[in-house]
Amino acid sequence: MFESAEIGHSIDKETYRKAVPPLREALLDAQYELKQKPDFPVLILIHGFDGAGRGETMNLLNAWLDPRLVRAVAFGDINDEARERPWMWRYWRELPQKGRIGMFFGSYYSDVLFSRVYGETERNDFDARIHDILRLERMLANDGVLILKFWFHLSREGQKKRLKALEKDSANAWRVTEKDWQHYELYDKIRKNAEHMMRLTNTAFSPWIVVDGSDAHYRSLAVGKALLEAIRNRQARDHVFVARSDTPLLARPIDEKLLLDTLTLDQTVDKEHYRTELDRLQGRLNGLTRDPRFAQRSLVLVFEGNDAAGKGGAIRRITQALDVRRYRIVPVAAPTEEERAQPWLWRFWRHVPGKGKVAIFDRSWYGRVLVERVEGFASEGDWMRAYYEINDFEHQLVENGAIVVKFWLAISKDEQLQRFKLREETGFKRFKITEEDWRNREKWEDYKLAVCDMIDRTSTSAVPWTMVEANNKHYARLKILATVCNALEARLEAGA
Amino acid sequence: MFESAEIGHSIDKETYRKAVPPLREALLDAQYELKQKPDFPVLILIHGFDGAGRGETMNLLNAWLDPRLVRAVAFGDINDEARERPWMWRYWRELPQKGRIGMFFGSYYSDVLFSRVYGETERNDFDARIHDILRLERMLANDGVLILKFWFHLSREGQKKRLKALEKDSANAWRVTEKDWQHYELYDKIRKNAEHMMRLTNTAFSPWIVVDGSDAHYRSLAVGKALLEAIRNRQARDHVFVARSDTPLLARPIDEKLLLDTLTLDQTVDKEHYRTELDRLQGRLNGLTRDPRFAQRSLVLVFEGNDAAGKGGAIRRITQALDVRRYRIVPVAAPTEEERAQPWLWRFWRHVPGKGKVAIFDRSWYGRVLVERVEGFASEGDWMRAYYEINDFEHQLVENGAIVVKFWLAISKDEQLQRFKLREETGFKRFKITEEDWRNREKWEDYKLAVCDMIDRTSTSAVPWTMVEANNKHYARLKILATVCNALEARLEAGA
Repeated sequence: MFESAEIGHSIDKETYRKAVPPLREALLDAQYELKQKPDFPVLILIHGFDGAGRGETMNLLNAWLDPRLVRAVAFGDINDEARERPWMWRYWRELPQKGRIGMFFGSYYSDVLFSRVYGETERNDFDARIHDILRLERMLANDGVLILKFWFHLSREGQKKRLKALEKDSANAWRVTEKDWQHYELYDKIRKNAEHMMRLTNTAFSPWIVVDGSDAHYRSLAVGKALLEAIRNRQARDHVFVARSDTPLLARPIDEKLLLDTLTLDQTVDKEHYRTELDRLQGRLNGLTRDPRFAQRSLVLVFEGNDAAGKGGAIRRITQALDVRRYRIVPVAAPTEEERAQPWLWRFWRHVPGKGKVAIFDRSWYGRVLVERVEGFASEGDWMRAYYEINDFEHQLVENGAIVVKFWLAISKDEQLQRFKLREETGFKRFKITEEDWRNREKWEDYKLAVCDMIDRTSTSAVPWTMVEANNKHYARLKILATVCNALEARLEAGA
Repeated sequence: MFESAEIGHSIDKETYRKAVPPLREALLDAQYELKQKPDFPVLILIHGFDGAGRGETMNLLNAWLDPRLVRAVAFGDINDEARERPWMWRYWRELPQKGRIGMFFGSYYSDVLFSRVYGETERNDFDARIHDILRLERMLANDGVLILKFWFHLSREGQKKRLKALEKDSANAWRVTEKDWQHYELYDKIRKNAEHMMRLTNTAFSPWIVVDGSDAHYRSLAVGKALLEAIRNRQARDHVFVARSDTPLLARPIDEKLLLDTLTLDQTVDKEHYRTELDRLQGRLNGLTRDPRFAQRSLVLVFEGNDAAGKGGAIRRITQALDVRRYRIVPVAAPTEEERAQPWLWRFWRHVPGKGKVAIFDRSWYGRVLVERVEGFASEGDWMRAYYEINDFEHQLVENGAIVVKFWLAISKDEQLQRFKLREETGFKRFKITEEDWRNREKWEDYKLAVCDMIDRTSTSAVPWTMVEANNKHYARLKILATVCNALEARLEAGA
């Protein structure tokens, strides 16, 4: 969820100075058009970690927009009037009307999140209230409200740095309160519960927008552009299209820095080390699958990656360590006729492993948000809701005791070219290279964006993605084996 | 939920004999067209009380339809293969493919309902699993599955009668098992939990169809016609329209017997009795609102009814008993400009009363599924989802401690005519009659259907509708006052 927001985004002062005036003008234009043609209201929810610039952003938007058409509401502690009524009441009464922009600071999400973080609500009540929110937002979306939900993010280390920096700055020291430091102590708890809450409310009609909060320039431009794009998208539509939001997915960050670009693809290991480690890890994996505790669990391995990134080879290094009765490789290509006659997830449900078993997916349900998205095989509404459906599916696996480990094998474009050529030249590898591979290669950048979106929207603490630097096959295989072993061991130890 | 299914429907043998052959032929035609153009699968879920004809109906459909294109699956106890996997797995693998019809006997709803009835799941877990179902059905609907959910209903008395009758019939005695009688003992528990489950899953894209199960002819025709209509509706569409289902609402029952027609509208009380009872009930109501326990509750009264049914007079008899600081009358007419600029429920959320207060709605949010439906002010998708949204809204009120009492004041068409004429003739009453009233009167039958739908879809044990026979104003007022007092007293006693 927070992957792309933790790679360190920033915009330099000069770029920011140049970008702001046209952005402000465009925002004002959009706002006036909205006033002239008040077809829908805009509801902006501001959430995230203390110190991540939530208050500053609200002030900024108030300054950039025509304040007569904007209403910012900060929800503090609940008062008597609200306490006597259903908990949603105080949010209902502050909803912006058509043609206007409403900003909620500390909305219903804060109520739900912090009563969970403070231990006032049980997990089940937490979920029940999250479902209250889901129903509310679905109704609002159906009624035409354009909802933008921002999560301003900081890593744990980043939050500490920001709070200290603010304290040192006399103009901003007031922003840092005792409560902020208390929340910092609760960082892991907040993060874990926020992620759960966001996963369940990250719908196609109202997705979360996670913004790196560490750099003020980046943060401000990102929010401003997202808001502008959402309003413009909706204005270009002649009806509300509930199956998908007008919120931009923000795949292409404004500083052009992509999660995948942060990988150092050329990591290597020497041959000797590879041999010993491979043996050791395979032995460890074998032992773990024979562990009596594994008899009550199952293992689901998902392999995705660039064409020719070495998925097959990595999978073989895993199966070499497994009892053949215990695992099953599921190669995923275009759906069969039987599969096309079913809801799209059906063909993956078929292969859910039983207890003590391993299912290895060579490509997977993620094709929905990769190839089907990029090639247009799935409609925008369909692949957008797929993130939610995938998270739900994997969550059901995990609840049932499965250990799910997902890999994205990344190679550079050059490395891919060399491997393609090698495949064409090598007789017994020629079946591995097709026209389609060359065509996909032409869409390298589109796929990259889709992959970053996918990781951000489907990586959760229970089912995280592991990105594998795969220019060197040996390095990649060892990383994959070690990740599987560690995940297995940790989850068997934890017992859940 | 079960109102219309408990008024006793039946179809005589002769009518049935005549209706079946064309229905079967039409079903076969629809089925072959579906096979020729396999655009979607049909999933039929069969639920309801033991003895209500679920098994017979499945057999019947199997006989009526081409069985090569139908698959009936009875889900019994869970086996090892399924136990090792997420609980939804065994339903996923039995989904019908496009062009085919699948019938589930004892689907995921049974798992969830009976583990609750047997006390194996807590209320919160019950809700969590209901939400699992909601997500599943939303996904299936998005993927084009046409879902028909039948609930075969029997009253408690009706179930006893049916089980005894089956036992006496040597050909059917085998149908009645020990377990059926055990379930009969649990009738109230099953009904209460089924209603809760059905309320939460009674969505616009997949509504429940409640069928009176006491008469085999009625039941069979009702199911057959609903199935036919749903398939034909979908085939007539060129795309899946998820905002609303193709399931017919069944407002006009096949035996033409409507819930509203079962009322005896001409009930009277003598003048003397009226005077004494009015005084007594007003005194009782006053006392109840002064009860210290009421300080932690609130009261929401909803008045709907035919034009000129006497809502205003009844409301006055209530307010006469209340401290003026305690209540507020909310007259609901066409929305103001401010209200139209908001999500549709907003204008009612505004008037949610605080603790110790009474809000009296003279017309209400039900206008959405009455006048807005009948006059076409709301789109089909919008009013269909309104049932769900209304139930959700009222549920939030109840969870917060409100006592919600809803009245439908029914008068006959003749009585209305007399009252309209009287209003036109009486100077000080002339403001009460408009052109619109005369126009509404022309749509008497349409309104009647909308009212029956409304009551069936929004009457729950926590927030039931009370139908008031209102041809005699005195009788109506006493019934209303007594109902309010009883509801108030019962809920104050119960403490929740």
